[in-house]
Amino acid sequence: MTYCLAISVDDGLVFASDSRTNAGVDYVATYSKMSRFVFDDNRVLVILTSGSLATSQAVLNAIKRDLDDPETEFDISKGKYLHEVARYIGKLSQDEQRTHGEAFEKSNGSNESSFILGGQIKGQPCEIYLVYPQGNFISSSVETPYLQIGESKYGKPILDRVISADISLSDAARCAVISLDSTMRSNVSVGPPIELSLHKRDMFQSPEHLVLRATSDDFQSIQVQWNYGIKSAFNQLPKLDWDKYNR
Amino acid sequence: MTYCLAISVDDGLVFASDSRTNAGVDYVATYSKMSRFVFDDNRVLVILTSGSLATSQAVLNAIKRDLDDPETEFDISKGKYLHEVARYIGKLSQDEQRTHGEAFEKSNGSNESSFILGGQIKGQPCEIYLVYPQGNFISSSVETPYLQIGESKYGKPILDRVISADISLSDAARCAVISLDSTMRSNVSVGPPIELSLHKRDMFQSPEHLVLRATSDDFQSIQVQWNYGIKSAFNQLPKLDWDKYNR
Repeated sequence: MTYCLAISVDDGLVFASDSRTNAGVDYVATYSKMSRFVFDDNRVLVILTSGSLATSQAVLNAIKRDLDDPETEFDISKGKYLHEVARYIGKLSQDEQRTHGEAFEKSNGSNESSFILGGQIKGQPCEIYLVYPQGNFISSSVETPYLQIGESKYGKPILDRVISADISLSDAARCAVISLDSTMRSNVSVGPPIELSLHKRDMFQSPEHLVLRATSDDFQSIQVQWNYGIKSAFNQLPKLDWDKYNR
Repeated sequence: MTYCLAISVDDGLVFASDSRTNAGVDYVATYSKMSRFVFDDNRVLVILTSGSLATSQAVLNAIKRDLDDPETEFDISKGKYLHEVARYIGKLSQDEQRTHGEAFEKSNGSNESSFILGGQIKGQPCEIYLVYPQGNFISSSVETPYLQIGESKYGKPILDRVISADISLSDAARCAVISLDSTMRSNVSVGPPIELSLHKRDMFQSPEHLVLRATSDDFQSIQVQWNYGIKSAFNQLPKLDWDKYNR
């Protein structure tokens, strides 16, 4: 499994991903699910992947192949709008799935992948898109300023409580860490290290990037402090008045 | 959808359920999903239901029919062990599903239901069981002292952080409320009122029972206080040292 998310706030974008992949419980491995592309002074793109590792890798290979090919019709350095790049990723994904489609139908398996594409093209706002396995896509909204792929449910309550467009990038990043930590505690197929990237609005340079390993002090201190904070908050809750309600 | 859970601690058992049912988003209704049975000075049973409302109601009707029938081979007042009652509920559920099985196969629908059965039979420990739609069942364990049915993921992280066998019944009940509240915020098909029942170990009387409506002061003050506590805990988290990790 996988859990990746992107958060869009006024100051920019935050991306976060776990690093565990598994083909059955007896084949677990560690892969980065975050790819960053910077086209100097023009555009910053981050791509997060979930689903079939083979399809995800094939799409990223095709993205790089097209970037290397001076004759290509479209690549991720082209297009005036980010949704054109989202459409292109959806098409690459569908092409790859179709190549092996018959084989997967026969084996009743799935080679579907989902993608989050986020970033900024000069002159355009910061945006994030979720590209579905079928190739279509959605963007976030002011009311729902985040997108998730993979194992999304365990980590959603904290996002719904904390994330709004006006929080800082640094707070959004810490919230992403908590969301990932909650997911990792409940689903062993989501695991460290956590990768974080942070794109500041209108800064067309490489996004800030951070890797939190299970053993890293910062990650451990956030985990310990959060666990303590949750328990304190719980202990301060009003008691239920059982007698009042008894009937 | 539905979200019900049962928690087993040293002092007894806590049961919690939401009350929303829906047959499509255009038919939403409110039903209790919690049934309590007390057989004086001998056994206390609580049954929580999720899945097809028709199947759940049919199973409860069959339970009551058998209780009324002096000639019945088995009913929930019989059996020395709680797992015998769990097996009986699984059989009633399977019988009911089979009755309409062909019709549901034709319409590609599902009439599956899941049940949580908990309680205590005199001379036996307090126990909780999850009865699957297939009729088989599992009990909780010391390491995992709770069971969930329905929309279980959003409300699981708080259980994993707070619940252990040595917490009080009252704390377990408040944790159940938080778990339900987190789920209701993220999935509109889980909704109030919240029903809570509390069985004290070796007390063979009607379990304490409490209904928290959306408008009830106690419920609202827990919601407000929890939201405040979560945000305080979040604001006290250590900052991530971006510079240290940059590369």
